[in-house]
Amino acid sequence: MALVVQKYGGSSVSDARSIKRVAKRIAEAKRAGNDVVVVVSAMGDTTDELLELADEISPKPPQREMDILLTAGERISMSLLAMAIDKLGVKAKSFTGQQAGLLTDAVHGKARIVDVVPHRIRQTLSKGQVAIVAGFQGVSTSNDVTTLGRGGSDTTAVALAAGLDADVCEIYTDVDGIFSADPRIVPGARKIDKVTYEEMLELAASGAKVLALRAVEYARRYDVPVHVRSSFSGKTGTLVTGTHGDLIDPNASTGDQEEAMEDPIISGVAHDSSEAKITVVGVPDTLGQAARIFEVVAGAGANIDMIVQNVSVAATGRTDISFTLPHGDVRSTVAALNAVKSELKFDELQIDDEIGKVSLVGAGMKSHPGISARLFGALRDAGINIEMISTSEIRISVVTRADSLDDAVRAIHTAFGLDSSEGEAVVYAGTGR
Amino acid sequence: MALVVQKYGGSSVSDARSIKRVAKRIAEAKRAGNDVVVVVSAMGDTTDELLELADEISPKPPQREMDILLTAGERISMSLLAMAIDKLGVKAKSFTGQQAGLLTDAVHGKARIVDVVPHRIRQTLSKGQVAIVAGFQGVSTSNDVTTLGRGGSDTTAVALAAGLDADVCEIYTDVDGIFSADPRIVPGARKIDKVTYEEMLELAASGAKVLALRAVEYARRYDVPVHVRSSFSGKTGTLVTGTHGDLIDPNASTGDQEEAMEDPIISGVAHDSSEAKITVVGVPDTLGQAARIFEVVAGAGANIDMIVQNVSVAATGRTDISFTLPHGDVRSTVAALNAVKSELKFDELQIDDEIGKVSLVGAGMKSHPGISARLFGALRDAGINIEMISTSEIRISVVTRADSLDDAVRAIHTAFGLDSSEGEAVVYAGTGR
Repeated sequence: MALVVQKYGGSSVSDARSIKRVAKRIAEAKRAGNDVVVVVSAMGDTTDELLELADEISPKPPQREMDILLTAGERISMSLLAMAIDKLGVKAKSFTGQQAGLLTDAVHGKARIVDVVPHRIRQTLSKGQVAIVAGFQGVSTSNDVTTLGRGGSDTTAVALAAGLDADVCEIYTDVDGIFSADPRIVPGARKIDKVTYEEMLELAASGAKVLALRAVEYARRYDVPVHVRSSFSGKTGTLVTGTHGDLIDPNASTGDQEEAMEDPIISGVAHDSSEAKITVVGVPDTLGQAARIFEVVAGAGANIDMIVQNVSVAATGRTDISFTLPHGDVRSTVAALNAVKSELKFDELQIDDEIGKVSLVGAGMKSHPGISARLFGALRDAGINIEMISTSEIRISVVTRADSLDDAVRAIHTAFGLDSSEGEAVVYAGTGR
Repeated sequence: MALVVQKYGGSSVSDARSIKRVAKRIAEAKRAGNDVVVVVSAMGDTTDELLELADEISPKPPQREMDILLTAGERISMSLLAMAIDKLGVKAKSFTGQQAGLLTDAVHGKARIVDVVPHRIRQTLSKGQVAIVAGFQGVSTSNDVTTLGRGGSDTTAVALAAGLDADVCEIYTDVDGIFSADPRIVPGARKIDKVTYEEMLELAASGAKVLALRAVEYARRYDVPVHVRSSFSGKTGTLVTGTHGDLIDPNASTGDQEEAMEDPIISGVAHDSSEAKITVVGVPDTLGQAARIFEVVAGAGANIDMIVQNVSVAATGRTDISFTLPHGDVRSTVAALNAVKSELKFDELQIDDEIGKVSLVGAGMKSHPGISARLFGALRDAGINIEMISTSEIRISVVTRADSLDDAVRAIHTAFGLDSSEGEAVVYAGTGR
């Protein structure tokens, strides 16, 4: 008998019919002898409808009240789901984030979990009942309702799985798992059977949307096995754990059949078109100038991704600094930088909204220079310009023109032998929806 | 500076526009120097929509889950109302029944309040902020969400007013107050300025729907002044307190101008068509037989209102016992009685769905036999048959055919000089909506 935490997103519980379908799956898991805890999001469009209502009332509502408003959504879905399970003859009880013991800080709208104290969930399981828990929400130390922000329900599920020492945390979604690339862009993309936390982190940070970055971080910290799978089929999905599965060797597709333990193992290709690029032109190349720029940027609340500083032009003693950031942060960042233009003595700001980022993720990349060369070569052969490059131990990301992004994803996917016609297995990580 | 509890029903907060209107009224009360606590119901049709959703899922959902589902409604209205008030420059915070300290027993669907511990509401007021509280809900001793059942939001408001020792509890509705009869039936019905708890209890129990019976009971017990008034106008409504206002003397309209301190004071005419009549025919007239019948009826969960036992027919030693009860309780009651038919030895059950009840309410009735005579005379003159009679210290109720009910209300209203053309004042209590 296993303890299983299952998470169902809004699209899996969008109406009475789909709630009944999910209830059936939960009842089956319970009848198979498992202890089952279910984390559920708000039904389909509920959150959008509530946001619209708030917008009719006030353009800038207090965040505390927004949290109360939005958490009404999970109340509806969780109680309906409990009713549907009960109707199948399996006892179920629903719990708010507070009742489930999800304690957070008091930062409304994007609260962080500070502790998980799931007494009532344990009690419910010990009575042989299914526990349904509202995703996305918790209670603050000041006893106010909080929401966890984007990806909140995934994080709730992983945090509960950690707190309950569950055997697995199943994330149900509308795709079969994590893919080697977004199947809408790369028809030959394949489902990955296994991937490590680290690779999944890079994939999520690089644009893969099936699993929230935050949930992966949490799973990694507490070593929670996560199984990303479809709520529409019984198929095995992608297992995210601390150890590697038998991923394919990228050299296999290039004729080198010899397996080497230290060869890099490619997970997949991720892409992201949610960022823009700001270039600060003509910055005096003096000590601390870059630090000062990014202090100002951080003060504006922007999440910087890639940073590139050009070699300074000796004649002028000036340089350009470019960085990428979410579209939504551009306005406040530009305003903040312009406010200190005279202090920082730069010439101007250039904003580029039309960039795309493609990332290759896999273990052992940095120690294999051939990987970068193969990636750059593939893009050159496809006629795609590289505008920025950034690398980590297990990732290479490049910025291209936005309208070249899909071509770049396909070119890299093919160059590393990931297309399903070329081998057996596995590998990464496109957008789920 | 006064401490005011205001309660707004679902029709007062049915959409963004009406929420803004209510917010304006609240902000005005606050700016006038009052401490303001607001109890709010779910928006317009929200509750019905949620009930429909539940019905799609299960015909008999667990009541605990129904409570969680239904309380989503107030979360939405209370947070939106807080946002709307905030937008007017007045700080407001919303609280669930639990956060507001409304502690109840664990009878889901119709919980009773066991204590009110409004620490957080007091804190909020002491910071100069408006506190918005979800009506209709509380938290049980086992830390589960409960609902208070019918009239729950009125009860929340009165209970909070008692717990906070408020100066007044204002119940906002879509009519101007309590009327001397339902204005839809009696066009000359007049608004009552003042009425006692006892009279209001009789009026509410006799069919007046503006104020929930339970809330009146609570107000009477804790001596909370209740002001029933319109959310659409600034007019003074009806004040419900422990002492009488200057109601009209019914004799004034009949030529006797001499005021007498002990003359009865008529509050108004209430009516109720929500009941049916069951007659148990041919009951052996032996000791304890009636008691046994009503044991069985009570066991079926029925709320009995009026009871009439005919004089037994000497030749047969048998009698008929009739009683009235809500339409919804008929089925279970008939089944329960038929199950013990052989034990009780009655001949048959007759069910009459087509009855109406009209009640005259006022102080000092029982000691004035002339009141009954005038009432029966008015009905006789209007050609209306009386089928059952019941009286209390301050009420006379008669059962008529359902299709004679409106005529009966009008005849009595006129006979007691309550029509607005015939005098100055006051008096009772029709259906608000």
